[in-house]
Formats: sequence, structure tokens, C-alpha cells
Amino acid sequence: MKHKMFGRSQNKTGKPPGTLIYTGHRQQEQLRISSFSYDEQEYSEQEVPQIEDVFPLRDSQRTAWINIDGLHAVDQIEKLGGHFGIHSLLLEDILNTNQRPKMEDMGDYLCIILKMIDFDEKNGDLDSEQVSIILGKEYVISFQERRGDVFESIRERIRKGGGRIRRMKADYLAYCLVDAIVDHYFVALERVGEQLETLEERVMEDPDSGALQSLYDLKRQLLNLRKSVWPVREIANRLDRSESALIGQKIKIYLRDIYDHTIQVIDMLETLRDMHTGLFDMYLSNVSNKMNEVMKTLTIIATIFIPLTFVAGIYGMNFQHMPELTWRYGYFAVLGLMAGLFIGMMIFFKKKKWL
Amino acid sequence: MKHKMFGRSQNKTGKPPGTLIYTGHRQQEQLRISSFSYDEQEYSEQEVPQIEDVFPLRDSQRTAWINIDGLHAVDQIEKLGGHFGIHSLLLEDILNTNQRPKMEDMGDYLCIILKMIDFDEKNGDLDSEQVSIILGKEYVISFQERRGDVFESIRERIRKGGGRIRRMKADYLAYCLVDAIVDHYFVALERVGEQLETLEERVMEDPDSGALQSLYDLKRQLLNLRKSVWPVREIANRLDRSESALIGQKIKIYLRDIYDHTIQVIDMLETLRDMHTGLFDMYLSNVSNKMNEVMKTLTIIATIFIPLTFVAGIYGMNFQHMPELTWRYGYFAVLGLMAGLFIGMMIFFKKKKWL
Amino acid sequence: MKHKMFGRSQNKTGKPPGTLIYTGHRQQEQLRISSFSYDEQEYSEQEVPQIEDVFPLRDSQRTAWINIDGLHAVDQIEKLGGHFGIHSLLLEDILNTNQRPKMEDMGDYLCIILKMIDFDEKNGDLDSEQVSIILGKEYVISFQERRGDVFESIRERIRKGGGRIRRMKADYLAYCLVDAIVDHYFVALERVGEQLETLEERVMEDPDSGALQSLYDLKRQLLNLRKSVWPVREIANRLDRSESALIGQKIKIYLRDIYDHTIQVIDMLETLRDMHTGLFDMYLSNVSNKMNEVMKTLTIIATIFIPLTFVAGIYGMNFQHMPELTWRYGYFAVLGLMAGLFIGMMIFFKKKKWL
Amino acid sequence: MKHKMFGRSQNKTGKPPGTLIYTGHRQQEQLRISSFSYDEQEYSEQEVPQIEDVFPLRDSQRTAWINIDGLHAVDQIEKLGGHFGIHSLLLEDILNTNQRPKMEDMGDYLCIILKMIDFDEKNGDLDSEQVSIILGKEYVISFQERRGDVFESIRERIRKGGGRIRRMKADYLAYCLVDAIVDHYFVALERVGEQLETLEERVMEDPDSGALQSLYDLKRQLLNLRKSVWPVREIANRLDRSESALIGQKIKIYLRDIYDHTIQVIDMLETLRDMHTGLFDMYLSNVSNKMNEVMKTLTIIATIFIPLTFVAGIYGMNFQHMPELTWRYGYFAVLGLMAGLFIGMMIFFKKKKWL
Amino acid sequence: MKHKMFGRSQNKTGKPPGTLIYTGHRQQEQLRISSFSYDEQEYSEQEVPQIEDVFPLRDSQRTAWINIDGLHAVDQIEKLGGHFGIHSLLLEDILNTNQRPKMEDMGDYLCIILKMIDFDEKNGDLDSEQVSIILGKEYVISFQERRGDVFESIRERIRKGGGRIRRMKADYLAYCLVDAIVDHYFVALERVGEQLETLEERVMEDPDSGALQSLYDLKRQLLNLRKSVWPVREIANRLDRSESALIGQKIKIYLRDIYDHTIQVIDMLETLRDMHTGLFDMYLSNVSNKMNEVMKTLTIIATIFIPLTFVAGIYGMNFQHMPELTWRYGYFAVLGLMAGLFIGMMIFFKKKKWL
Repeated sequence: MKHKMFGRSQNKTGKPPGTLIYTGHRQQEQLRISSFSYDEQEYSEQEVPQIEDVFPLRDSQRTAWINIDGLHAVDQIEKLGGHFGIHSLLLEDILNTNQRPKMEDMGDYLCIILKMIDFDEKNGDLDSEQVSIILGKEYVISFQERRGDVFESIRERIRKGGGRIRRMKADYLAYCLVDAIVDHYFVALERVGEQLETLEERVMEDPDSGALQSLYDLKRQLLNLRKSVWPVREIANRLDRSESALIGQKIKIYLRDIYDHTIQVIDMLETLRDMHTGLFDMYLSNVSNKMNEVMKTLTIIATIFIPLTFVAGIYGMNFQHMPELTWRYGYFAVLGLMAGLFIGMMIFFKKKKWL
Repeated sequence: MKHKMFGRSQNKTGKPPGTLIYTGHRQQEQLRISSFSYDEQEYSEQEVPQIEDVFPLRDSQRTAWINIDGLHAVDQIEKLGGHFGIHSLLLEDILNTNQRPKMEDMGDYLCIILKMIDFDEKNGDLDSEQVSIILGKEYVISFQERRGDVFESIRERIRKGGGRIRRMKADYLAYCLVDAIVDHYFVALERVGEQLETLEERVMEDPDSGALQSLYDLKRQLLNLRKSVWPVREIANRLDRSESALIGQKIKIYLRDIYDHTIQVIDMLETLRDMHTGLFDMYLSNVSNKMNEVMKTLTIIATIFIPLTFVAGIYGMNFQHMPELTWRYGYFAVLGLMAGLFIGMMIFFKKKKWL
Repeated sequence: MKHKMFGRSQNKTGKPPGTLIYTGHRQQEQLRISSFSYDEQEYSEQEVPQIEDVFPLRDSQRTAWINIDGLHAVDQIEKLGGHFGIHSLLLEDILNTNQRPKMEDMGDYLCIILKMIDFDEKNGDLDSEQVSIILGKEYVISFQERRGDVFESIRERIRKGGGRIRRMKADYLAYCLVDAIVDHYFVALERVGEQLETLEERVMEDPDSGALQSLYDLKRQLLNLRKSVWPVREIANRLDRSESALIGQKIKIYLRDIYDHTIQVIDMLETLRDMHTGLFDMYLSNVSNKMNEVMKTLTIIATIFIPLTFVAGIYGMNFQHMPELTWRYGYFAVLGLMAGLFIGMMIFFKKKKWL
Repeated sequence: MKHKMFGRSQNKTGKPPGTLIYTGHRQQEQLRISSFSYDEQEYSEQEVPQIEDVFPLRDSQRTAWINIDGLHAVDQIEKLGGHFGIHSLLLEDILNTNQRPKMEDMGDYLCIILKMIDFDEKNGDLDSEQVSIILGKEYVISFQERRGDVFESIRERIRKGGGRIRRMKADYLAYCLVDAIVDHYFVALERVGEQLETLEERVMEDPDSGALQSLYDLKRQLLNLRKSVWPVREIANRLDRSESALIGQKIKIYLRDIYDHTIQVIDMLETLRDMHTGLFDMYLSNVSNKMNEVMKTLTIIATIFIPLTFVAGIYGMNFQHMPELTWRYGYFAVLGLMAGLFIGMMIFFKKKKWL
Repeated sequence: MKHKMFGRSQNKTGKPPGTLIYTGHRQQEQLRISSFSYDEQEYSEQEVPQIEDVFPLRDSQRTAWINIDGLHAVDQIEKLGGHFGIHSLLLEDILNTNQRPKMEDMGDYLCIILKMIDFDEKNGDLDSEQVSIILGKEYVISFQERRGDVFESIRERIRKGGGRIRRMKADYLAYCLVDAIVDHYFVALERVGEQLETLEERVMEDPDSGALQSLYDLKRQLLNLRKSVWPVREIANRLDRSESALIGQKIKIYLRDIYDHTIQVIDMLETLRDMHTGLFDMYLSNVSNKMNEVMKTLTIIATIFIPLTFVAGIYGMNFQHMPELTWRYGYFAVLGLMAGLFIGMMIFFKKKKWL
């Protein structure tokens, strides 16, 4: 996630408002336009090459879900926006992959822009992708940067029928999409939590500078998650309180559920942040403790041997008149003195609890 | 409490909303269904094997209290929910043991989800368990993860009669349950407070890395308590202001009392957090002080003996022409010089207050 | 104040709400019931042995002030509560000496619970005592844990007459009691401020671990003060805005004055907290500075003498062929070399500003 | 400003509310009563010995400004308060020089209490003085602790006429006084900002404990400023929104201007506080860096010479059978070995970037 | 940006409110007055020497944009203010280049004051300039301190026609100006973000005091940005909610867009601040780690060689009776002992993971 932290393509500045430019890094992804059309009895699913092929879905009696993978196909999206009457400023936001999550009620349609967060098992990093959802009368359009999403189980439920989804309308479908995204935040947070707990042991046992780097990386991840997750609370709250005709009364309890989940995600996130701070404090303390240990070792050795060396130095002097040198047991007396000093020092250190 | 910090079973993601899955760790607990039915005159208490056995209580004239221990019996709970008309999203929350404490007014019934916190005397850790309370017209249903709770004294009061509880209705019973849970927060906080005070002495006297680990564990406990306790404030506030017909006017002053207690719990919690921070600062300072002491010892020894050793070294040189070596009292003069150096150093250190 | 920080007698948990238990530490204090009864013309003052003796005051034409010292006499207080119609939950709060300061408008009477804070000159510690004030129609009842309070000047003013107090009603009396308590917060804060300033010098000159302990004790005192003082702001605000018939219009400006004072107390408290943080930072910095000084001393000594000792060591070697040893002035040349090294080192340290 | 930080004369506690006592430190200042009386055509200025001499100004047709320097003359101020009908609680606040800045709308008159802050060029400290302004119908009374204020330019404008001030009424005069005080906050903050920037260099180059003391003194100044400035925001806001008849509609835009300035002052203050924190962090870091440098020096010297000394020590031993000692070039071989060790160490340190 | 941090020219204090003084540092810039006048069909552009030349634009049928570069020409701006009826307090704010960003609705016209922030590629510093925008009925006046701005693309769009700008009125033009300024905040923040990431590597690898200085400079930049950007949020919010007749209904969605962008800018800014704090923590930790490494080196060397030197010292003593000295293999035995000690030490350090 590192390289995307402060993007918002500079080549946008100077352009008139409403200019459509894709600001993401996935130019080479292939465009894919797929759609569902369903009611309680039946459903149809298709993948079309041209955006114009989904235009008829707008006025069908059934609930329609159009999904676009690949935001670099600016002209196709512009055509879609034209047909469905989406304001150019909103299209600009949909294409600007650094857009802050937001919700806009345009009367005829609602626009919800969120971050879909996935844990990339390969490099142990979080992977964020912008998803925009347009909820109109009996249709939902979703925009993603690339293939692969968290909606597969929803598609499956539509195909299978049976559950609630085919009996409900477009508002329920939009709710399902948002719910799937918010549910994945829990997964992401759990993974970050696991990383934190792994790091914990390392910090306690061996606080090296690799642990420091990991702590810093985790901090970045948490900051990124926070940027993606916090605005969702306001979105969920506004959806819950919205008086838009597009949102049926039956959906309200589901929206409140999303709001609850968002609060819970934020709670977890803040707890993780507090734990991260605590872990960093522990890292610092452990580094200090290690230093203390090192210093104690040095001090013990130096304090014991420097005086002893001095005593040896005295009897290494070459004065002609040094009475002790001629004593019969001078040497052994000095050895005894040294042993005494040594033992005294050891007792001193034991008392100080340095040993 | 460690292993539950960031749970929310991942196998939930992808399931349609309202899917009932128990996410706790107590699969092996035995299900127990017990019930009270009482009015001012008499009461009956029973423990039944099948959930269907308590269904008649719904429409009895008396106040009914159904208590379920063991949330893994998903099918039984689903049946209960069906009979009492509890929304599937709420049942999902009741079974999801990582649910954030919350309160939902569904018109016909209120649902309150709380964390019951107990201090586990064995391992000195806090033990948290989710309790959900459904307050309907003349009945209360409570869900717990396992047997053993803080409600025993309430059961006793129902059995004994005499007090207020038998004269009051289901709303008072629900209040009593919530009150018992909130009252136990004080016990938990007092225990944490005691641990903090024990740690205090250890930090002041012997700030080793065991103390550091304890400080970190306490921080975790405080973070956990905060997650459980903070949302209760909002719940108590909403209960207090609720205009639900389920809550009688007489109960209002009791609910305000719970709100007051919650504020007090939060006050204590925040004070504990401030004290924890203060204690951690003191730990760091004491580690620094210890290091200072170690360094002073080293410096004193080295500063005294290194110069003396140098002097001894000079007269250990083997030059043929060293006049001092032949002096009669050269040796004693040098010993005197060394003593002088020694005393000078000692005075210097006394002045610096290092001794 | 140390031992009371996290009390709330555990033996309360499990009791039905409204059970009266005194939770303080002053069981052995003697109960004292005293009362004033006054109007503009005259006043009477008495001390009675039985609580029943003050019951007639309730319906007298004059303003009555009943003061109870000693909360352990639970039965007497229960009788009083019964006669004056005080709700049992409130009586419970009055007896629970760890009650958070609060204000409750019960229609017929107001209940205000505050902490009276006094500075104990003997041990330099703050002393906190719970005071509860019941303001009814033409009577005020005050509850204290023990004799000795900050109300003596109010009694004196009632006795002397002349001032405003005898011309005003019970609401003014209640205001005077609260005002006296809030005024004493200033005294307590000033004392803490003085302690902080005394500590300041000590931290600057001799940052030992005694100073650290004092810093920690001050932090505790500030946390305790905060717990006692912050809730008073809300109480004062609610009193100011109260529409209770018990509070006359003339009193409003006095209540606003109390609110202003409370804000000022909180301002002072927060400033003290900021200064405490600043002082702690300074303590840490000074410890670091001292360590730096110690290290410099060691480094200077070692850096000067270790190379010199090495030189002496070289000429202490016993090789048979060491030309310098036989030189006429070899010894003096080496001494000169050593002096040169010494001077060079000194210049180096001067340049580094270590000397 | 040091000695006034936590004052609020203790001899006030116990006095009935509304007792007038001057709590400042300027008892010996001489009382001065001066007044202006002006309309568009003419003005008169006088200095009178007795407070009674200004009483007639109350009912004159012109705008009157009465200024009192010296708050210790309690009896004079009491007389003034009596004649102009100022509430005794307000007079108490005016005399209490530790009053928090506040604004009170009493219907007939407004009372604004502020801190006038001046930079004392002599000792580089901030000097704070309480100024109280009473705005009545066509008169303004200002109270100051001593002569010398920031109002001289206003007096000059009244004398010169020509500008807006003579055409406007008392509300504009009051605005001018407040504006002059707020404008001086900028001067005070700029000076503190300059001190901070001076300190910056010192901290970067030579982080001694003098710099630490200066940092702490600056923190005190900032805390003091904060106490004086923050409440002004609320005052300005309430003035702006006030519906008092004393404040004309034309004045509103000026009051909004004061509000804007106050916000800007607070912005600057908070920025200064952030910079102070940053500077303190830098101080700590620099102390650590210096310590690192000291330790490196010690380590380099010790690491080079201790092994060399050991080698010399070996050949200083007096064993009878040490073959090397008799070698022809033994001495030079050992010297060579030592030079090799020395060079090896230097390369090692270069690699570690310690040199 | 350094020298402007705490300016607000002091020579302003004492002047009557509404006195026009330019407080910036660009006295020598040349004044330039340029204007656009356009409608959907045509446009004219001119640069005039005298301010009077643009007065006719006020009453033309077309949309007029007057741009003034150079605020030192106080008299010209005063004339302009007079003709267009701009309040003198606002003119004062426009000329005071340290004005906090603000928005004032004066009924006939709106005044918006912002900071235009540009990244100075030369010295890697942010460059801030005050821009004031007056939106009247069918005219916009913009004031800048000097030539060169972020509006060039807007001029180009007016010249080219075709786009939306020529079809819309003055309110859209004002929106475009504000939008261009806010868009440039992203550029500035991205550059600061890049600097932060560059610094990151340096801090990880070589945490010297140059990195510390850079960290401090970045902190200043972030504080400066915060001062400029935060108030824009309130401005954008008030514009969005404004009911001024000057702002057409069609513009509302654009204003909401600006509000969204501002929130996003603030989000980025706060994330940058959090990352800065994290980086500073990492700097401190790395300094500690380096110190640890230094200390370990010293300790290893000293701990190995000091005991060995002591052993050598013993056999360098000159006692007449030292049996070992006469042993045949005494010397080699001692060398062996030393080697053993050395190896033992090495194993000890390996075990401690210091090697």
C-alpha cells in the first residue's frame, strides 16, 4: 500500500472541475462489464464487451446489477454516466482512486464510494481498492479497479435464489455490497491484530531494529486503515437516517446493523492503535533494559579487574628498594589480597542485585 | 482474555446477513435452560431440557424470566427466536460473542447486549462473557455463554420474595440484571486497581523486565475493559431516555442510577488508565536512574584506578637511566603520590554528589 | 487519600438496589446531630442526641439547617430519610462515600453530593470527605463523614445576623454550603501548586528518585482532585439552569458565580496538570543530562590515561634488544612524549566543549 | 508572572460572598481617577482626587469614560459601585485579580473582565494585569491595577477627534478598549515566538541545562497566556451574539472582527505550543546524540588501546623462558604487530561510520 | 516560510481599527491590475495602469474579474474599496497578510480570504501567499501579493470558451478560483509526503543530527500547512450552507465538492502528522539502538582484554619468589590460560547474542 499513500495525480490540477481522469495504477487491467438482472422468479447473468449493451437494463422491470472492473476505460464510463444521468463531478470522484469514502444523495440516485480492503497473503500487506456503488431506482452499478472482489458470495446467493436477496429490491442489493465490504474490514483487522501479536513476542525477547521496522510498517497500515474506515461511520449513519425514497423502510434495520458493525470496526481499530503504542513503548523499554544489562556487565568486569591490575602494576615497578619484593611469601600475600578484593567486589555486586 | 481480543470468526464473511453462527470458544459447555415465573404471591422455578418447554411462559400472567446458558445450541436458540419473534439480525448479534455492547428498541421488545466481567482469582486475569437480555411484555430472556453468573443474588431475592422484586414487573427484573452486571464492573476495576498498586512497589524498587511485562498485561486488561464498558454509557443513557412502553415510569429513577454508576465506572477506568501511564513513566525513569547508578560506579572506579595504574606503569618501565628508581625512598614516595591522587579523586566525587 | 482510590465496598455487590451501607473508613467517629433554625429576627442552635428531635424542624416557619456528622449510623439516617421522604437510592448514594459528585432534582427536594477537600497540614496530603446536601422547601440537610468542616464561617454568619444570610431562605443557605466547598478547592489547588513549585527546584538541582516518588504522588493527588472537581462543573451548570421551584430567582446570579468559580478551579487544575507533565519531562531531561556528565568524566579520564598507560607498557617489555632503553635520555624523552599526548588530549576536549 | 500563578488570596475563604477584597500585589500603587467626556463637537478630560467627582458623568448627555488605576482603594470602588448600581459579586470579581476572564450581561450594564498582557522588555518576561470594563448606557468605566496601559492611542484619538471614535457612542469606546487589549496579545505572542526561535539555535548547537530551564520557563509563559487568552474567545463570541440593547447594530461587525482576532491569537498560541513540544523533543534528541558521540569516543579509544596494552603486558612478564624476548628483532616485530592492530581497528571504525 | 511564522506587524497596534497597512514582505513587487470581462459569446482581457480604469466593469452586463497583484499599493486598493463599497475592516484584513483564512458574508458581496500554497522547487520549501476574493453581483475581485498564481488554467478556459465557465456567472468563477487553490494543497501535501518518505530511509539507515533538523523543519511545514488549511474547512462548509443570493443553486454541488476536497486535504494532513510523529519515534529508537551497538562493542573488548591484561600484570610483578616464573613451560601455560579465557568470553557473548 506504500506507494499510494499520498497520490492524487498532480496532472489533475489545472483541469476544469468534472474532467474525468483515472488516477490509479492499474492501467493494464482489462475492462470487464458484467451484469445481473433478477426478480424472485428468475435471473440472468451476462458479460458484455460494450457498455452500451447494459443500457437496456435501466428500464427493465427486474432488479439490475451492473459491475464494471477496470476504471481506466474512461470513455466507456463516461458513456455509462451519460445514459444513467450521473453527475460529472461524481464520475470524477469514482475515477479518482484516492477519493475519500463518501456518500452523496443526488435525489434520483445515491452514490457510495468505499475502500475494499483485502489482506494480501503473499506479502503480508493490506491491499486497498476503491469501490463505488450507484443505487438508482431498481438498479445498482458498481465500479471496481480490477477483477477479484469480496462480492462472490452475493453473486452465488443471487444465482441460487432461495434466500432473501431475490425477494428484495435494489436497495437490499446495495446493502449487501456495502455489508460485504464492511465485513472484510474485520478480516483485515484480525490479520493486523495477529501481526501485532507475533511482533509482541519478538519485541519482548529480541528487540532489534527489524522489530522497529515492523512496528513502523504496522503503524502505516493502521493509519491507512483509519483513513479508509473512519469516513464509513458517517456514511453508515447518513444511510441509516436517510429519507431518500430509494431506501425502503424494510432496509432500515439492515443499515443500522452496518452502522453497528462500523462502530465495532472503529473500536477494534482504535484498540489496535492503543496496543501498537503500548508495544512501541515496550520496545523502547526493552532496548533500555538491554543497554542496562550491557552496562552492568561492563561495569562488573571493569570494577573487578581494574583495581586488581593496579595492584599487579605496583609490584611490577622497578624500584631498587621495595621491601615486599624480597619477602618470602610476598607473592602469595599479594595473590591473597587480590582474591580478597575479588570476593569483596562480588559481594558488593550481589548486594546491589547486579548479579 | 488474550486469545479473544480480535476474534470475529472469519468464517462468517460471505454468509448472508442474519445467518446464525456461534463465534465463541465454549462449544463443549452443556446447554441449560432454566426459568422463573413469579408474581407478588408465588413463584415457580424450573430447569427444562427442551426450549419448547418454556414457550408457554410467554403468555402467562406472571412475570417470566428465561435464562439460557450455552450459545452453541444454535438450533434451540433459533426456535426460541422464532417463537418470541426476535429478528434474525439480533439473534446473529446474540450468538456473535464479539458483539459490541448495544441496545436495540424493536418496539415489541428491547434487546440489550452486555459484557459480564468477572475476575478469575486463579490466574489473576479478567474473564469476560457476553450476556444478552431480551425484555418483552412481561418476560425477560437472558442468554449466556456458560453456567455461572452474577445473577445468583437476584434469583435468591425472587425465591425469598419480601423485597421489591416480586412486586415489580419484567422491566424491574431487566434493570436488576443490568445493575448486577454493572456492579460487577466495580469489582473488576478494584482488582485491576489492586494489581496496579502491587506493581507500583515493584516498579519503585526493582524495575526489571518482569514488571514491564506486567505493565503491558495490565494495559491489555484496561483496553479490554474499556471496550466492554464505554458502550454501556450510551446504552444506559438511551434506556434512561427511552420512551418505550416496555419501561414503566417507576423504573426511570433506577435507570438513571445505572447511568450514574456507568459514568462512575468510566471515571474509575480513566483514572486507572492515567495511573497506568504514570506508572509506566515511572518505570522508564527508574530504569534510567538505575543505569545512572551503574554508570557512576563504573566511572568512579575507572577514574580512580586508571591514573594510578598509569603511575605504576611508568615506574615499571625498564629504562637504564631512571633516577627515581635508585632513590632510597622512591617507592614510598610513589605510594604516597598514589594515596594523594586517590584522596583527591574521592573529594572530587563527594563534591559532585556521586558518592 | 491513597487507600481510598478504588474503593466501593465489594460487599455491596449482590445486595438489592437501595440497600443502605456505609462504605467509608470512619466507623469509629461519633455521630453528631446539630441544627439551626432561623429567620431574619432570631435564630436557635441545638445539638440533639436522637434524629427524631429534628423532625419538627421540617414544618417550622423558619429556615432549618440540619447537619449530620458520621455516616455509619445507618439506622438514624434511614429514619431521617423516611421522615423527609428521601428516596432510598439517594440515601444509598449519600452513604456510599465513593459516590461520584452529582445533583438530582427529585421535585420536592434537590440532592447535591460533593467532595469537601481539605489540605492536611500534618502529612502534606489532601484529605477528601463526602458531603451531601438535601435542599427542601425551607430546610437544608447536610451529611458529613466526620466532625470538622469548612462551614464554620457560615454558622458564624447565621449567629451574628446582620449579613444577607438571615434575610434569605434555604436556597441561599444551600448555595453558601456549596460555595464554601468550592472555595476550598482553591486552597487545595494552591497547596498542590506550592508543592509543585518546591519540587521544581529539587528537580532542577538534584533529580534523584525521591523527586520521582514525589512527582508520582503529586500525579495521584491531581488525579484525585480531578475526579472530585470535574463533575462539579456539570452540577453547577445544572443548578444554574434548573427550573426547580426550590431555587429562587434571586439566587441565580450566585449560582452563576459558583459556575464561574468551578470553571476557574478546573482551569487551575488543568494548568497544574500541564505543569506536572512539564516538570516530569524536565526530570527525565535532567537525569539524561547527569548521565551525560558522568559519561563525559569517564571518557575524558579513560581517553587520556589509556594511551599513556599503553606507552608505559611498551617500555615495560622485557625484550633484550630495545635500543630506546639504553639511551641516556630515553626515560625523559618518553615522559615528554606523555606530557605531549596529555596536552593534546586536553586541547581536543576543550574544543569539543567537554571541559 | 511566576509568583501569581496560583494565587487567589486564601484569606478570602470563609468570607461571605460579595465581600470586597483586593487580592493583587500592588498595594502601594497610588490611586488615580481620570475621566473623559465627549461628543462629536467637543471633549473634556480631567483627573480627580475623589471618586464622587465623577458621579455627575453618569447622567451627562455626552459619552463618559471613567478610568480607575489602583484596585487597592476598595472603599472608593465600593462607592462607585453603589452609585452606578454594580452588583457586589461583580465588584468582588473586579477586585479579585485572579479572576478568569469573563463577560456578564446584567441588563443595565455589561461587565467584561480581561487580562492585559504586556511584554516587559527589562526581564524578558510577560506582564499580566487585570482590566475590567463596565459598559453602561452612555458610559464606560475601566478598572486597572496600576498606571500605564495599552489605551494611550485611544485617548489620543478622542483628543484629536476627526476619526470615528467621537462620532460613535459608548459601545464603540468599549469595543476600542477590548480591541486594544486583544491587539496586544499579538505583540506578546510574537515576542514569545522570537524567544522560541532564539532558543531553537541554542538547542540545536549546545543543548545544555540552561536551555532546558529556558524551555521550561517558556512552557510556563505559554500556559499563562493560554489561561488569559482562551476565555476571551467565548467572551468575544457572546459579545458578537449578544442582544443587549447596550450594543448598537453598527458595532456588530467590529465585534465579529474581535472574535476573528481572538481565534487568530488562539491559533498562534496553539502553534507556539506545538513548536515548543517539537523543540523539547529536539532537545532530548540532541542530548541523546551528544551522549552517543561521547560514548563513541570512549569506545574508539578503549577498543584500540586496551588490546595493545594487553600485548605490551604479555612481553612485560618476567618468565625465565620466553623465547620471543631473546629474538633479535622481537621488539620490532611486536611494534609491527601493534601497528597492524591499530590500523585494523581504524578500518573497522571507518566501516562502522564511527569516525 | 520561516520568517513569516509569527508576524503581524507590530506597528499596527495603537492604530484605529480599519487603518489600511500592508504587512507583507513584498514592497518592491510591481503593482499589476488586470481584468477579464466575458459572457457566453465574447470576452475581453486588459491590463490597466490605474485602478480607476476598472471601475466601469462594476456595472457592465458581462461577468467581470478584476485581479490585483501587489498589496503594497494601499491607496489604489483604498480607492477600489471605496468604489465597490468594501468595508474598511475587510480591506484591512485583505492587506494584513497574516490574516487567518476566513469568509464574510456582507450581504452585497462575499469576501473569502485564503492562503495559496505553492511548492518552491528551488529550496524545497513551501511558499505561501494570501489571496482574497470578493464576490459581488456579476463581478469577482481577487487580490494577490505578487504575480504568478495557480489561476492560469482558469484564464485559459475563459479565453478558449467552450467549457462551462463562459456559460456560468460570477459565482462559478469564484468557485473556480477557490477550487484551484484547494487543488494546489494536494500538490503541496504530496511534496511534503515525498520529503517524509525520503527522510524515512535516512532515519532508518543513518540517524544523524541532520535528519533531526530535517524532521524539525518538516514539523514546521506541517504546522504552517495546518494553520492555512484547517480554517478552509469551515469556510467551505459555510459556503455550502450559505443562503446568500450571490450564490446560485447550480453552484451548490460544486461547493459541496470543495468541502469534500477540504476534508480530504485535512485527512491527508493529519495522516502526515501522524507519520511524522511515528518517524520521530523511530529516529529516537534508532539513536538508542546505535548507542546500544556502541556500548556492546566497548563492553566486549573491555570484558575480554581487561582480565587478560590483569593476568599478564601478575606475571610482570618483580617478586623474588614467584615459582611459576621459573617453570619451564610457565610462559606457554599462561598463554594457554589466556587463550582459554578468550574463548570462554567469546562463547559467553555468543550466548548473550551480543555477537
